[in-house]
Amino acid sequence: MGREKRVKSVATRKPETDALRAEETTGIIGYRLRRAQLSVFQRFLSVFEELKLRPVEYSVLVLIAANPGRKQTEIAEVLGIKRANFVTLVHSLEERGLVERIASAADKRANALHLTPDGEAFLSRARAVHEAMENDLIDRLGGETEREKLLALLDRLT
Amino acid sequence: MGREKRVKSVATRKPETDALRAEETTGIIGYRLRRAQLSVFQRFLSVFEELKLRPVEYSVLVLIAANPGRKQTEIAEVLGIKRANFVTLVHSLEERGLVERIASAADKRANALHLTPDGEAFLSRARAVHEAMENDLIDRLGGETEREKLLALLDRLT
Repeated sequence: MGREKRVKSVATRKPETDALRAEETTGIIGYRLRRAQLSVFQRFLSVFEELKLRPVEYSVLVLIAANPGRKQTEIAEVLGIKRANFVTLVHSLEERGLVERIASAADKRANALHLTPDGEAFLSRARAVHEAMENDLIDRLGGETEREKLLALLDRLT
Repeated sequence: MGREKRVKSVATRKPETDALRAEETTGIIGYRLRRAQLSVFQRFLSVFEELKLRPVEYSVLVLIAANPGRKQTEIAEVLGIKRANFVTLVHSLEERGLVERIASAADKRANALHLTPDGEAFLSRARAVHEAMENDLIDRLGGETEREKLLALLDRLT
């Protein structure tokens, strides 16, 4: 019977404690990229747990600080975030009192983004935490030259 | 009034057509990793549109093919996928007739994973498509030496 055959095939394979053969999977560039990205993001979440800040939220705050008064659509476009997702994200930062949207004089529908004073203070703290994390990543890579090499290689894939 | 001041600050900033200042954001290692990973995954989805296969599903099929009869929990662990998500993923591959779960003789609850004959044939086609994509990525990186360098650097972050 098929059932017996199946059970036999299970019984005759190597013990389950053996390491799995995973060379084909782990050799895939996209797979390694994903693992590294998840690892870096996990570290970010851990380091920023106290500030309750996600990587994308940090990028948004940094971009608004460097470009006050820009429209939501502009910031979203630079980060490659879909409009609907970005609106939700900004709403959350507004609720926390970090960001404010101000209607443009020229176009009432356009919302110009600014950091609040609380947002500026929060970003200063976040920048200090992030700089320490980034320096740790650079140390792991082996230094600034290796960082530049990594970023150059990543850009060739983008 | 605050309202007037706000409108003025919007009116006096640079025209909206200017490029945004994004150096601080784009210099973040995690940001560049995420952009490259999304780009590679997008390419994968595009290339595999006809086969309706996601990157993680491809990895699962490759792992099952190399390790027939292993338990769901073992495959999930290698890929770093949460158990609940992995069950859903395997169920979808079963529905498509690519994978089958066979109860172990020793433990009725343990499900040993195997590819079906259709799954084997499907994976052969997927491997050919993936190999072409992977070779294209290696060309973009500049060759096999650059691929090795990238993977080594990514591993230092993981």
